[in-house]
Amino acid sequence: MKNTLHVIKIGGNVIDNPQALSGFLSGLASLQGAKILIHGGGNAAGRLAARLGIPQQMAAGRRITDAATLEVVTMVYAGLINKSLVAALQALRCNAAGFSGADCGLVLSSKRNASEINYGFAGDVLPGGVDAAQFDRFLTAGITPVICPLTHDGKGQLLNTNADTMAAEIARAMAALYEVELRFCFEKKGILADVSDEHSVLPELNYGAYLNLRGSGKIHSGMIPKLDNAFKALDSGVKSVWIGASEAVFLEQKNGTLLKTI
Amino acid sequence: MKNTLHVIKIGGNVIDNPQALSGFLSGLASLQGAKILIHGGGNAAGRLAARLGIPQQMAAGRRITDAATLEVVTMVYAGLINKSLVAALQALRCNAAGFSGADCGLVLSSKRNASEINYGFAGDVLPGGVDAAQFDRFLTAGITPVICPLTHDGKGQLLNTNADTMAAEIARAMAALYEVELRFCFEKKGILADVSDEHSVLPELNYGAYLNLRGSGKIHSGMIPKLDNAFKALDSGVKSVWIGASEAVFLEQKNGTLLKTI
Repeated sequence: MKNTLHVIKIGGNVIDNPQALSGFLSGLASLQGAKILIHGGGNAAGRLAARLGIPQQMAAGRRITDAATLEVVTMVYAGLINKSLVAALQALRCNAAGFSGADCGLVLSSKRNASEINYGFAGDVLPGGVDAAQFDRFLTAGITPVICPLTHDGKGQLLNTNADTMAAEIARAMAALYEVELRFCFEKKGILADVSDEHSVLPELNYGAYLNLRGSGKIHSGMIPKLDNAFKALDSGVKSVWIGASEAVFLEQKNGTLLKTI
Repeated sequence: MKNTLHVIKIGGNVIDNPQALSGFLSGLASLQGAKILIHGGGNAAGRLAARLGIPQQMAAGRRITDAATLEVVTMVYAGLINKSLVAALQALRCNAAGFSGADCGLVLSSKRNASEINYGFAGDVLPGGVDAAQFDRFLTAGITPVICPLTHDGKGQLLNTNADTMAAEIARAMAALYEVELRFCFEKKGILADVSDEHSVLPELNYGAYLNLRGSGKIHSGMIPKLDNAFKALDSGVKSVWIGASEAVFLEQKNGTLLKTI
């Protein structure tokens, strides 16, 4: 029987809220067993870019990563946010170590094709690009990897990679070795049946129901790639995927939405 | 018999020079056996601070690290410089992984006492603060640690730590497990008998001769803490300490200065 591995993704909304972050990190440090944390941090990168006068362009809800912006996200994601999280976890007696996808070649990607939109230095994780064996060695040694959303192409180029995608791809790769529970913490309490009603959290969502909600326009914009990633992970052997608010992620009776294949 | 470990420190002058850096990294990647790279990066941090309008104060040649400056150095050292070095080494088939002293609790420090000068968030490495066993596990796994000059106090606070000191302290701690060769790359060809004459490189320097040169004022300012660190490392069982230019560090017949205890 495989051991359980928790793969948990947090975004800028948790990172930017000291109280929410403190509660989340305490919960993570108390969580027994193997765990990997993936963090985003888009808001902080946008703020630094603004202070430096670097214009930020978005396309289809995603940041276009020119050379100056790649420097900004490398500083903010791999530097400021990653090391602050690691130091805070170490203080909670969780043996955290921060990595980008370049470190130990953990996550290999290729620069996104510029045929439709030129996203600049954006990387898509390659098939087989996650080094599950290296993650496993860290986990077996009692280390909690804290992963920032940067990858590399193996030729010396760092690439900006969506943190949701990183989490889903790492979860998929680790499913060969662990019973993986993938958890996305975001700014809402779960997937909403009606996006205008915060109380309409769906306790469960299967793929057919998702396709219906998407078809009717009730699930749209940024939720679509997030859920596509999540269902792809389920389809690849990840045991469960949960989406909800960070304050509920470590509760036994958790709120939020549990995704199911059928 | 112990295996050899190379502990190599590079400063901003190499990091800021693409040609020198490229040559250095190729040499490092080709170097067989266990190795640890420690990097500084003060120039880049100063440039970012200037762009952000954060005034930089120096005292006795050292940066005073206020809260805003700690953010700057965390972004530049742990983010931009560390991950750029790691990605470049990975492209050269060197299995590099970047760490701060907070990651895995590798280097524990305490905030420097503010009695004479308040250096702010500056950390001094604690006795026993280097986790030699964890470094050894990384090295045994074929990983080349790339270390930025940030440490933590174990209570969640990141601290700015002099990169020369980091290199010397890591070398000292590793001397229990390895035959350590400590190499400091800097902007000159070696220790100069006459600081105004670039050709006066001393091939060797022992502690007595160092004290004489220091007493006569021929070795002064920033060289004093560097050499104090270096001799302290020799005294603690480090096999050899070399100081010279980065382009000479991997040569068999190297230029530069070899420090000797007697």
